[in-house]
Amino acid sequence: MSSSDNNRLKARLARGFADRGPTELAATRAMVETIRETYELWGFEALETPFIEYTDALGKFLPDLDRPNEGVFSFQDDDEQWLSLRYDLTAPLARYAAENWDRIPKPFRTYRFGPVFRNEKPGPGRFRQFLQFDADTVGAASVVADAEMCMMAADTLEKLGIQRGQYAVKINNRKVLDGVMESAGVSEKQKLTVLRAIDKLDRLGEEGVKLLLGKGRKDESGDFTKGAGLDDKASETILAFVGAKAKTAKDTLTNLKKLVGGTGGEAGVAELTEIADVIERAGYADRVIIDPSVVRGLEYYTGPVYEAELTFEVKDEKGQPIRFGSVGGGGRYDGLIARFRGEAAPATGFSIGVSRLQAALAALGKAGNETPGPVVILVMDKDRTADYLAMAKTLRDAKIPAEIYMGSSGMNAQMKYADRRRSPVAVIQGSNEKDAGEVTIKDLVLGKEMSKKIEDRAAWTEERPGQVTVKEEKLVETVRAMIARQK
Amino acid sequence: MSSSDNNRLKARLARGFADRGPTELAATRAMVETIRETYELWGFEALETPFIEYTDALGKFLPDLDRPNEGVFSFQDDDEQWLSLRYDLTAPLARYAAENWDRIPKPFRTYRFGPVFRNEKPGPGRFRQFLQFDADTVGAASVVADAEMCMMAADTLEKLGIQRGQYAVKINNRKVLDGVMESAGVSEKQKLTVLRAIDKLDRLGEEGVKLLLGKGRKDESGDFTKGAGLDDKASETILAFVGAKAKTAKDTLTNLKKLVGGTGGEAGVAELTEIADVIERAGYADRVIIDPSVVRGLEYYTGPVYEAELTFEVKDEKGQPIRFGSVGGGGRYDGLIARFRGEAAPATGFSIGVSRLQAALAALGKAGNETPGPVVILVMDKDRTADYLAMAKTLRDAKIPAEIYMGSSGMNAQMKYADRRRSPVAVIQGSNEKDAGEVTIKDLVLGKEMSKKIEDRAAWTEERPGQVTVKEEKLVETVRAMIARQK
Repeated sequence: MSSSDNNRLKARLARGFADRGPTELAATRAMVETIRETYELWGFEALETPFIEYTDALGKFLPDLDRPNEGVFSFQDDDEQWLSLRYDLTAPLARYAAENWDRIPKPFRTYRFGPVFRNEKPGPGRFRQFLQFDADTVGAASVVADAEMCMMAADTLEKLGIQRGQYAVKINNRKVLDGVMESAGVSEKQKLTVLRAIDKLDRLGEEGVKLLLGKGRKDESGDFTKGAGLDDKASETILAFVGAKAKTAKDTLTNLKKLVGGTGGEAGVAELTEIADVIERAGYADRVIIDPSVVRGLEYYTGPVYEAELTFEVKDEKGQPIRFGSVGGGGRYDGLIARFRGEAAPATGFSIGVSRLQAALAALGKAGNETPGPVVILVMDKDRTADYLAMAKTLRDAKIPAEIYMGSSGMNAQMKYADRRRSPVAVIQGSNEKDAGEVTIKDLVLGKEMSKKIEDRAAWTEERPGQVTVKEEKLVETVRAMIARQK
Repeated sequence: MSSSDNNRLKARLARGFADRGPTELAATRAMVETIRETYELWGFEALETPFIEYTDALGKFLPDLDRPNEGVFSFQDDDEQWLSLRYDLTAPLARYAAENWDRIPKPFRTYRFGPVFRNEKPGPGRFRQFLQFDADTVGAASVVADAEMCMMAADTLEKLGIQRGQYAVKINNRKVLDGVMESAGVSEKQKLTVLRAIDKLDRLGEEGVKLLLGKGRKDESGDFTKGAGLDDKASETILAFVGAKAKTAKDTLTNLKKLVGGTGGEAGVAELTEIADVIERAGYADRVIIDPSVVRGLEYYTGPVYEAELTFEVKDEKGQPIRFGSVGGGGRYDGLIARFRGEAAPATGFSIGVSRLQAALAALGKAGNETPGPVVILVMDKDRTADYLAMAKTLRDAKIPAEIYMGSSGMNAQMKYADRRRSPVAVIQGSNEKDAGEVTIKDLVLGKEMSKKIEDRAAWTEERPGQVTVKEEKLVETVRAMIARQK
């Protein structure tokens, strides 16, 4: 390495972060617009809180509390107060609602969208910045608000192009789980570990969860995770709860009733019964399903918890089936705002993992197509730049994206540039054409297709596929027709 | 303060940050869409870089280098590397372009939008998070790319509703300033201070700038800013340059030529002459103006620098005239990418201060209106929640935002809620209406207007202004007609 190399700064993306290009961004934008429209139709309004909050106001409510000092990007302000980047969109909403309690309409129905940050070890597909889209109803104690969230989640997925039968919104209730834990003799200290163990059912299966409920589990890498320390009988009670789902909501509720008899869990079953009734009468019973295996990994939920899962499979490049699983979830968190206010403030909300859902839509071929680039006007003669700029203006005035080539290379490089920009059309006017008041227009999409077929260079030169020379005043008309034909 | 108050967490927005509600967010969205459309018409494509970058990759290119250790929010990663929140959208683009140099089309034309962060002492109207919208052309050495930026800036302002005559895009060239400084005998060490002094012309006037070019200046608060230490003759040369603008571009260029004769500034005048020619021939000479008083506060500019200024005045609440001044700016930074690559990578870009421009549009009454809320369906009987949900669905299916009241209060509170949500219409169905298969629909906008006129409570009760009772199947039709009438 030469000394100049040593002195040179290395251009590198920070670990766990990603750059995003036009096609991916267009797909996100389309998705977000659909979600926004749906949420607004359901009566939620936009709210935006800043990316940075006081660390104590956010609290520590990350799904992985095993590492309590990690998870959040934090820094100290010059007045010694600690600031953090938001790690979700719920904690800042709780701060906002508490701070503006007397000014907000109640119930307070908002949606929020944007990146959140996790200071975690990055890994394949694990990013430290990702997008969430949340909706929350603050100040509604009725579980109708929870039922509404689940129905809206179903509507949203369908509007995004996921068909009925390709997804399920599963709903459960923490009060039921608490009741089950009560009857199984689980201590306060063990509760969070039990919760986390159940939350891993999808990934580890019943055997794995059983180990985590008991002494603990060694994973493939040899790392040991300490278990909750339940005895076999308690573990069985928990697992019976997790597997209590029956064919109909009614039977599931009957199973749950038996498991929580005489405990505080009865209130949870009553709530689920009310939810099931609303869902049924609103015609969502085939999509929103009572499922006791859903617990959610967050400590702050106090009642209904719900999760939107994609149930279809796609094949990856190697032909292996992949399931996307959960693309969003949420629940009731009646205590989160009370931390500030000292009195109860019921709230429930749903959060979509936008990045993951977008990956799923892409797998279904519903994330949008590659975006086309602008028309490129070649610069054949630098002294005529003003003429080329005028042509670009003519096209723009007709709402056709266009630019003149801004580099300093020759015609071949300019054509290559148009190709890399995914330009639909190139416009060429050399001195001969100028003298004749004409312009040559090349269909780059057709040209590419034809060039695959015509192998004979002489024939190519003669036919000039997808290329026409027209009078200058036919520029817009010709370009527009070519672009229309490409679609 | 009671002990429970002491223990309670305080809900507070972090210093220098802001929450944003639906009306402001809708205005931003509309603005951003207009800018995006314009930039895409000009052939720029979307790019997004993460919010966090390695601190060394960003560099320190803040406008205020007097405090080199401040300005940026930074934190150390677990591998000891320093990370920073982006403070603008140019430094991350330079990193991206250098990192992906062999893969990007050249010229590389992108736009980027989003919040940037400054770790500065917050003050009135000074936020630590604000929005920028940038466009850049990387890999184009020709100043036609700079001229294009200025013309696109003009187009963008007009599309946003700012009329010709209400703004100017001013352009200058750092090479000319360098030439002037050369002939004035300004040392390398003094240059940045001179630059900063000129950049304050708008705020401090010629007298203030003169002090900053000389020994220094004491401001109103008594704080002393050290000057560049130029002698009177040198200061006069600099001020002559700053004031070299004449009535026509041609005369301005003649003035500049005299000031830089025999120095490297001649190249800068030649560039400005080429730009003036392109601008003139493209028909933008009335809006894009050569003005030597524009220097921009950033160190990294190497050629043309430009600024979009609003020239109209509005009155504030106290009747005092306010000018918004600069709402965007940029310039050529041929050295920024070279820091990584070791070889030249010419680039030029323009950045819109979205938040400030939005404030200006609001002052012009062009930032959009207050957004209406959803139709609110009152819950007259909790047991009939399913019916109310079905009504909401009927309205949503007709693309009318609607919700049922999710709280637990009575009819008066529900009507108040609808009012606070800015609902256009409330829907009421009590048991009498239900039995008759009818529904009552209240026009809340008309109702509010009428209530101002009718003071007699008896008359009010009798007339029930803006309220109709119709058959259930007329729900959508009636609501839609009311909303249409309100517009």
